[in-house]
Amino acid sequence: MIIVPERAIEGLVTAADCFAAVEKVFASMAKRSARNFPVVREAIGHADALYGFKSGFDRESLALGLKAGGFWPGNGEKGLTNHQSTVFLFDADTGRCRAVVGGNLLTALRTAAASAISIRYLARKDARVLGMIGAGHQSAFQLRAALGQRPFEKILAWNLHPGMFGRLEAVAREHGVPFEAVDLDRLGAEADVIVTITSSFDPILKASQVRPGTHLACMGTDTRGKQEVEAQILAAATVFTDEVAQSTSIGEAQHAVASGLLAADAIVEIGAVINGDHPGRASTQEITLFDGTGVGLQDLAVASAAVDLAVAKGLAVEVDF
Amino acid sequence: MIIVPERAIEGLVTAADCFAAVEKVFASMAKRSARNFPVVREAIGHADALYGFKSGFDRESLALGLKAGGFWPGNGEKGLTNHQSTVFLFDADTGRCRAVVGGNLLTALRTAAASAISIRYLARKDARVLGMIGAGHQSAFQLRAALGQRPFEKILAWNLHPGMFGRLEAVAREHGVPFEAVDLDRLGAEADVIVTITSSFDPILKASQVRPGTHLACMGTDTRGKQEVEAQILAAATVFTDEVAQSTSIGEAQHAVASGLLAADAIVEIGAVINGDHPGRASTQEITLFDGTGVGLQDLAVASAAVDLAVAKGLAVEVDF
Repeated sequence: MIIVPERAIEGLVTAADCFAAVEKVFASMAKRSARNFPVVREAIGHADALYGFKSGFDRESLALGLKAGGFWPGNGEKGLTNHQSTVFLFDADTGRCRAVVGGNLLTALRTAAASAISIRYLARKDARVLGMIGAGHQSAFQLRAALGQRPFEKILAWNLHPGMFGRLEAVAREHGVPFEAVDLDRLGAEADVIVTITSSFDPILKASQVRPGTHLACMGTDTRGKQEVEAQILAAATVFTDEVAQSTSIGEAQHAVASGLLAADAIVEIGAVINGDHPGRASTQEITLFDGTGVGLQDLAVASAAVDLAVAKGLAVEVDF
Repeated sequence: MIIVPERAIEGLVTAADCFAAVEKVFASMAKRSARNFPVVREAIGHADALYGFKSGFDRESLALGLKAGGFWPGNGEKGLTNHQSTVFLFDADTGRCRAVVGGNLLTALRTAAASAISIRYLARKDARVLGMIGAGHQSAFQLRAALGQRPFEKILAWNLHPGMFGRLEAVAREHGVPFEAVDLDRLGAEADVIVTITSSFDPILKASQVRPGTHLACMGTDTRGKQEVEAQILAAATVFTDEVAQSTSIGEAQHAVASGLLAADAIVEIGAVINGDHPGRASTQEITLFDGTGVGLQDLAVASAAVDLAVAKGLAVEVDF
């Protein structure tokens, strides 16, 4: 059994590795070669924790397993990350546990990879202004991954609590791209690509604030009740997602579908675009929206990449199990 | 993170350890201090494998985690067990992965512990003849655990395929108890306790073959469609189980409940008997039947015991994770 500890991930797996792994498994999902299993998510009644599993199998890569973990709100006081994840991979030919991989950084990277994939396949080629809504821990990963997809010349950002832009500014400086904190009107009026990464339960961005031709990657909504943008935006957009079943139940599309503004069968799997089975953006005036809900197969894909890299670089800890 | 490999389990954990651990978690379940989460079980479409998870949390012992694995029918040819299980335990206070424990032998031991618990709490004190239906891999564990609960003087056994009693005969010899292969009529007429441990999809034992006062532990049915004994036996018996929801959906009681012979709310959790909240057997003439379906909490309980013992004996492999 191979162990890849959390602390080994940072030096091992790049954003590009995760992009490639997630792109491949999205394609496999759209071909029905890969499938996510039902999600388990439970309030355990201890330490206010939410705990559960996302699991699946990709017949093409033979990645089989689960990500287990959850949200422990008291971890911060203990010097630990509130979100704790561990990925377990199994040998698809025998069912034996093949690897245990630290999943905290990988979760951030695979989520960022998904929005980056949506930008690569769906944003206008001439997109030059990037809007960021949300400035929390995950936002820096999203920004870094997004910057690789188009030659962005400006970053505009909004956050519910102002004065928290340190993370985003640091990434902008890293990449030498001008950064400005703005209001939502200006963000919507100027941005060609907008990434939302909040834990909002009320729509932040209004339909009137979004221009034709914008690509939105809505990455924050992963639970019933959460919402980042007005449902009318989804009604006006072509909506893409990682997995339709999650998009309509726990993703950003839940509200537009529930209120009849969007038909569930109009939502396109991003994998179909990757595979060339859907053309993606139809015109420079079209609004495209990617509803990134986060699936177990993404976790398995990036954890598999981590294991392969650890083995190749001689960094894997092998335990006789 | 603590690793307890499969090969370490045999010398580490006794049937008595598993009995104590499972008894405690059954009690905790009946007090609503412990809860199993939804079971995930999927045909993965590769190697004819069934794969999934059983998970849960016990607020009393703080055991949190899952057993992952499944059934790989081609493993035998590779020199591996067809059933492959690994237990993952998490720190309930932080969500970090605490231990990875080989789950193959533990699964056999926790299943045997459940039927042994049912015999201790439900069989007549003067039970002296033990009937075994089924002679496969798991039957030897069941027999060994059962023999510890009453001073049995005779073992009668039946199996669909005769001439396969080697495992049971070896355990009988170990314990110096006479063993005889018999037909079902004689088994039912003489046995005070009957353990069924088959993978049958048709009832084997008929109601007419069961005497008043018998205790049955039906341990083989864990899937919709499986059945070991006639539903009329459950109608005539007081039915106990590990978890009512599983008993009525995938356990032996599924048929009696579906056909209206047994009310779901008449089924008693064995934990209530352990806790003293239910008297258990009411008379020497009563038929008691334990429907052992197998829950994730049993796996977590015995794996936690294995970790504690490994740590106490200095046998735990610690990995910096």
